[in-house]
Amino acid sequence: MVATFSELRALPGMDDTLLTAGCPTRVVLDHVTSRWGVLVVLSLTNGTHRWSELRRAVDGISEKMLASTLRQLQADGLVDRVAHPVIPPHVEYSLTSRGEELAGVLLPLVEWSARHSAEILASA
Amino acid sequence: MVATFSELRALPGMDDTLLTAGCPTRVVLDHVTSRWGVLVVLSLTNGTHRWSELRRAVDGISEKMLASTLRQLQADGLVDRVAHPVIPPHVEYSLTSRGEELAGVLLPLVEWSARHSAEILASA
Repeated sequence: MVATFSELRALPGMDDTLLTAGCPTRVVLDHVTSRWGVLVVLSLTNGTHRWSELRRAVDGISEKMLASTLRQLQADGLVDRVAHPVIPPHVEYSLTSRGEELAGVLLPLVEWSARHSAEILASA
Repeated sequence: MVATFSELRALPGMDDTLLTAGCPTRVVLDHVTSRWGVLVVLSLTNGTHRWSELRRAVDGISEKMLASTLRQLQADGLVDRVAHPVIPPHVEYSLTSRGEELAGVLLPLVEWSARHSAEILASA
């Protein structure tokens, strides 16, 4: 586990361009820290969800934002979409194994935020 | 370490309102996942920085965004600002212990993003 950004940059496979503007890591970091992306990934840690279940689980998300968030997560290989050929249509979403991995590094951040939210907002 | 959102909600001190719209955790999560907030916190894991050093370290940030990002991080008790009474003014920024804790849960997410950015962007 690295403790500083310098240590992170020094790891095999990393280099001095890490986190420069527009670098691949910044692009991916923007996706995986987007407000709705985080909440959709978290909801899917509980297992496969249908569209309408996700819409309820992610409090406050609009249809349009849910659609574009799921599209981005699919494009990034983090979420699988399965459409069952039945009438009415039955579409299910779940985390891919890469999405499960992402959830593993997101949950500690969410837990930390939950544990400290009261004191942080009180200090503001 | 929790593995699902349901497990997180079931922890002592958490409840069913966790991550509902506008709840304290969502507010804090928005702050700590903001693009510039993440990058400023990461830069400060390397130790105390002056304004001009941060401006260089966080590639692409404007003066205005650096100012408002630092103001938010200070308000949240994550960053300390020390102004030395000399001429010309000498102002230093560093992580508080709460900020160090945040860095501890942010770094794994950044490392994951760095390791997977190439394959994620290739799959898009």
